[in-house]
Amino acid sequence: MSIRLLVSISFLFISFLGYAQDPAKVPIPTQAQLNWQNAEMAAVFHYDLHVFDGKKYNQRKNRITPIEDYNIFNPKNLDTDQWVKAASDAGCKIAILTATHETGFALYQSDVNPYCLKAVNWRDGKGDVVKDFVKSCRKHDVLPGIYIGIRWNSFFGIHDFEVQGNNLFTENRQHFYNQMCEGMVEELMSRYGELAIVWFDGGAHGPEQGGPDVLSIFEKNQPNCLFYHNLQRADMRWGGSESGTVPYPCWGTFTHASWFDRRGDQDDFKPLKYGFPDGAFYCPAMSDAPLRGYNGRHEWFWEPGDEAHIYPLQNLMNMYYNSVGHNTSLIIGLTPDANGLLPEPDVKRLKAWGNEIERRFSNPIISISGNKNVITANLPARKIINHIVLMEDIRKGERVRKFLVEGKTDSGWQTVIEGTCIGHKLIHPFDNITASSVRLRILESKGEPEILKFAIYQVDLESEF
Amino acid sequence: MSIRLLVSISFLFISFLGYAQDPAKVPIPTQAQLNWQNAEMAAVFHYDLHVFDGKKYNQRKNRITPIEDYNIFNPKNLDTDQWVKAASDAGCKIAILTATHETGFALYQSDVNPYCLKAVNWRDGKGDVVKDFVKSCRKHDVLPGIYIGIRWNSFFGIHDFEVQGNNLFTENRQHFYNQMCEGMVEELMSRYGELAIVWFDGGAHGPEQGGPDVLSIFEKNQPNCLFYHNLQRADMRWGGSESGTVPYPCWGTFTHASWFDRRGDQDDFKPLKYGFPDGAFYCPAMSDAPLRGYNGRHEWFWEPGDEAHIYPLQNLMNMYYNSVGHNTSLIIGLTPDANGLLPEPDVKRLKAWGNEIERRFSNPIISISGNKNVITANLPARKIINHIVLMEDIRKGERVRKFLVEGKTDSGWQTVIEGTCIGHKLIHPFDNITASSVRLRILESKGEPEILKFAIYQVDLESEF
Repeated sequence: MSIRLLVSISFLFISFLGYAQDPAKVPIPTQAQLNWQNAEMAAVFHYDLHVFDGKKYNQRKNRITPIEDYNIFNPKNLDTDQWVKAASDAGCKIAILTATHETGFALYQSDVNPYCLKAVNWRDGKGDVVKDFVKSCRKHDVLPGIYIGIRWNSFFGIHDFEVQGNNLFTENRQHFYNQMCEGMVEELMSRYGELAIVWFDGGAHGPEQGGPDVLSIFEKNQPNCLFYHNLQRADMRWGGSESGTVPYPCWGTFTHASWFDRRGDQDDFKPLKYGFPDGAFYCPAMSDAPLRGYNGRHEWFWEPGDEAHIYPLQNLMNMYYNSVGHNTSLIIGLTPDANGLLPEPDVKRLKAWGNEIERRFSNPIISISGNKNVITANLPARKIINHIVLMEDIRKGERVRKFLVEGKTDSGWQTVIEGTCIGHKLIHPFDNITASSVRLRILESKGEPEILKFAIYQVDLESEF
Repeated sequence: MSIRLLVSISFLFISFLGYAQDPAKVPIPTQAQLNWQNAEMAAVFHYDLHVFDGKKYNQRKNRITPIEDYNIFNPKNLDTDQWVKAASDAGCKIAILTATHETGFALYQSDVNPYCLKAVNWRDGKGDVVKDFVKSCRKHDVLPGIYIGIRWNSFFGIHDFEVQGNNLFTENRQHFYNQMCEGMVEELMSRYGELAIVWFDGGAHGPEQGGPDVLSIFEKNQPNCLFYHNLQRADMRWGGSESGTVPYPCWGTFTHASWFDRRGDQDDFKPLKYGFPDGAFYCPAMSDAPLRGYNGRHEWFWEPGDEAHIYPLQNLMNMYYNSVGHNTSLIIGLTPDANGLLPEPDVKRLKAWGNEIERRFSNPIISISGNKNVITANLPARKIINHIVLMEDIRKGERVRKFLVEGKTDSGWQTVIEGTCIGHKLIHPFDNITASSVRLRILESKGEPEILKFAIYQVDLESEF
């Protein structure tokens, strides 16, 4: 047997494992998953026809009510640069656009879905918001992602993936619709360059459920992209709420290759929220929430007079701690208006949020790394401290199972946190203590721990806002 | 009471009658109906996506099967001048185009139906076949008409006027679809100038049947146009077959303002075929047939390899006698191909047909008119004769109920035809006789007969083809 053949066979064998494993026998992320977790914050821009109807959005009603006149789509001052810049100012490294949402209207020049920007008078039927958006992402060094809604289509008559009706005509239209979806996925995956993520809202039924075969088209066109999600594949998991937070611990691993049918809906989505430390599949959670989610509102789309529902900065910081700081990436929902701009109050809040994250975490007293069971950070002097940030090198998987952080105070070693999961990042705020050194003790791990970051902060919370 | 007010009231009173009547108490046509009957021959051009699919058309299947890729619409050499010229050469004075047929695809730049020429790559999404077609009609002095199919829509999911399904979503989409239809009718009735006829295929359900309100939009935009048809209004009636013929007699009057629910489907459409001589409503029949209807075929749309099914000239002449010659207008179906042209064999046959009609009927031995009960045409000499053509002046309604035509031969007056209905036109061929004069005797009429034309011909049928 030639070496070449041997290498080929070995390669095949590794490929067959589906998700590669490291010598510590823990699942490790793909490059796309790694990019996703390193991004930490993403924005999703929801934009659809009903932004232009001047009415309150009602998802249950809207998804089964076609928009009367699609020519209301007329964002005269569309400026996707402004959108992406605002997201970037908050710290988002990825930005996602709803190429289609529940109306079925496509924000680009589709050759397979006539209900798209070709149909409207805006820009003489030549507009392409997806194109503009991706270009703006490239300009601002933000990775572009695309959201595709195929589960509902108020125009074509799609109800939870299915064509309305129950006869041969229905079957024919289902076949046509599935093909239309495949065509749109082909267009969106092939026309705009490399994408960080493709997000099928509510999942994308695969052929085994009577739906289109979107996965093979995705895989052919976007080998380095995160796929989210259906029964066949899901490269990350929903964190079980739209609060922008997950509880602790939130493990990045799961028991099945796709979590989509094991969400635990009846169990308050606990499997999604917590994950499984010994799960064989790397599948990190994400936290998502709309920026306009304050005070009883929860708006993924722009509506008039909703500025008062932009989350205050303190809420956003809490969200950050409980998402990025709990080993998930945070997706914040942003709402461009009918004029084509992200409203100024949102832009300002995002900028303030980014500044505050920067203020708190850009200047650690000390930041070290290591792969021993005990890592000690000796502070330059006795310091008041109140935050630690821990990161594992997740290229090597989530290894830590149990740990302790202690600060050396006048009265000896004092426990700062006794934890389990670290994963990509754990942010832990605590009451001020004065310490001269801080140590991380890995009490239990799979293989050798790989601590990428052990950082200690003194954050001035009095003057924060 | 002022004269002006009196005139206004009289006018109102006449208007309220719905269909005006003449002093002979017979219904008379509107100007649009008069134009229609004077045209005698019309062409209807069927053009839709499946012309481009290279497959045999199967109406039952096609109307419930969306076309896979609407970008197959690509008539590279579209030449509507050539279409209309060919129809005109046959003698058609009106030409009708299917602006939409059963796919639901609109052959123009619709702002309310995205499934239209805006969606395709052909002419960079700027094509408008309706516009081109109407322009060609004006150029060739042919009156344009528009055919609108709203009963079926394989794309949107319309089955016999109804949105598929049975729930609130269905209701919402039905509302939207009705509105879309109204929008299309508004566009088609307002963008292209005066039309001779608008033809709603299979009728247009009105609001009383859960359908759109197309009639008021039509009436607002096209006061001088023939409306065909729904339960509310029908300015002509179908002749009860697609053979291009009606039996004799075929009266131009009917018992109800709209015949649509009194077709007599179970009675072989006899009410439509014969009409009612004492019907209170002027509503002439039409005969329709596709040019490619020979030898077991019946093709309203172009298909490859169908040239052998173009009706031979003799069949077309028989059709002419039994349609135009039986007091109906004839609509001949023409089939432009995927290249955008009417195929040459069809063009040639149409030209030959027009020439043959011209050859037979352009040179009467004598042609006279009159309003007496006996009208005698004295021939310049003893002549072999074999055709007569009779026309009433239908501006004054169909008055004749019974008549006789006799030729004076060596052996005395010989009956050529004993008939009932004349109406707009009766063509009667008969075996050669040699006569020195021919007389028309009106045996029964409503009021004074108004004979516009009493013409006698010697047609050489030996050398006809």
